[in-house]
Amino acid sequence: MTRVRVHNFSVSLDGFGTGEGLTLDAPFGHAGERLHEWFFPTATFRSQSGHGERVDADPSSAPDDAFASQWGDGIGVEIMGAGKYGPPGWQDDPGWQGWWGRKPPFHTPVIVLTHRPREPLTLGETTFHFLSAPPIAALEVARGLAGDRDIHIGGGPTMLRDFLAAGLVDHAHIAVVPILLGRGVRLWDGLEALERRYDVASVTTPSGTTHLTLTRKAS
Amino acid sequence: MTRVRVHNFSVSLDGFGTGEGLTLDAPFGHAGERLHEWFFPTATFRSQSGHGERVDADPSSAPDDAFASQWGDGIGVEIMGAGKYGPPGWQDDPGWQGWWGRKPPFHTPVIVLTHRPREPLTLGETTFHFLSAPPIAALEVARGLAGDRDIHIGGGPTMLRDFLAAGLVDHAHIAVVPILLGRGVRLWDGLEALERRYDVASVTTPSGTTHLTLTRKAS
Repeated sequence: MTRVRVHNFSVSLDGFGTGEGLTLDAPFGHAGERLHEWFFPTATFRSQSGHGERVDADPSSAPDDAFASQWGDGIGVEIMGAGKYGPPGWQDDPGWQGWWGRKPPFHTPVIVLTHRPREPLTLGETTFHFLSAPPIAALEVARGLAGDRDIHIGGGPTMLRDFLAAGLVDHAHIAVVPILLGRGVRLWDGLEALERRYDVASVTTPSGTTHLTLTRKAS
Repeated sequence: MTRVRVHNFSVSLDGFGTGEGLTLDAPFGHAGERLHEWFFPTATFRSQSGHGERVDADPSSAPDDAFASQWGDGIGVEIMGAGKYGPPGWQDDPGWQGWWGRKPPFHTPVIVLTHRPREPLTLGETTFHFLSAPPIAALEVARGLAGDRDIHIGGGPTMLRDFLAAGLVDHAHIAVVPILLGRGVRLWDGLEALERRYDVASVTTPSGTTHLTLTRKAS
């Protein structure tokens, strides 16, 4: 059975999944790279293509990598929100091809949810499909692309919140980073009592990151 | 040197320190007792007076009690907000004497911050002093009552946020409970970049509670 999964989605202690003031030069706004600093030393990140010369992972990041490395395993497609694909207004730029250069790290088809779809775009192993659809309809399209593999919900926070609220996520790994952003886009809004539908567990690694897992309870 | 400390202050995963709809019958509103369930099985809670017959602590709560038990040690006074002392409107009831019965668990003087002060009230070992003052002035009064001991900031979330924002807290223990309240009073609002002034550490216990400590950096 195809599962819908979330991996390596970072939020601040005060629940923001991205900062304020997103631009081409600041994809996460005033948050900068602080939400993802735990991820950069991991073997999973270091082994991705497109980061220039290969750098060995920091051994002390092994506990973080135990979570990070679950990202790609068994994933057949990613669904992402418009806010992850580009800075505000990318739809006005016909030449915008995402942040990831010529070899995006997805290795699967990607569905980009946007109210202004465009023609599919193939870069390296990744084809981006642009779709204007609510979460449940997007999942139907994703299932057609994923085969018997799982579906990854890539964020940003607004679309992830929508998928959680609609009860469409089977497993979520959220990395809670011990910083207070104070402003930005919140992940947890409107998700009152979500814990009733999930087994929630967490552990804090030496990097200070609290890895939270939400696993849907058998119904 | 007198320190200003916070202990056993619980928030939900989405950052609410209390729920919505606070009343005499529901001191934490729709949150009920869910923010504090981790605390009830601990030896610290079970040994407090006023809970009826003595019940042994649950041994599996020992890791939680390691945090809970730091509460009273070396504390000479507590400052609490009006919202902790009583339900909304308690100031209109001259007979209101707090939630804690004839033997409140504080064992020290307590300063209650309220815009409508009244005469001091002594119950058991505890004298409540009512004070209309901003955080820094309240601390001055508290120091006079605490002698060489520390000052405990008791909450609720609004007053704790004010003390944190004013840079007046030396050490804070926040218990993050894996529930999503969705509404209520947030602790973390307006505290952007608080982590720059604190060393932040955390650990999750078997109860699922993530105990977060903020310790002010040496300046």
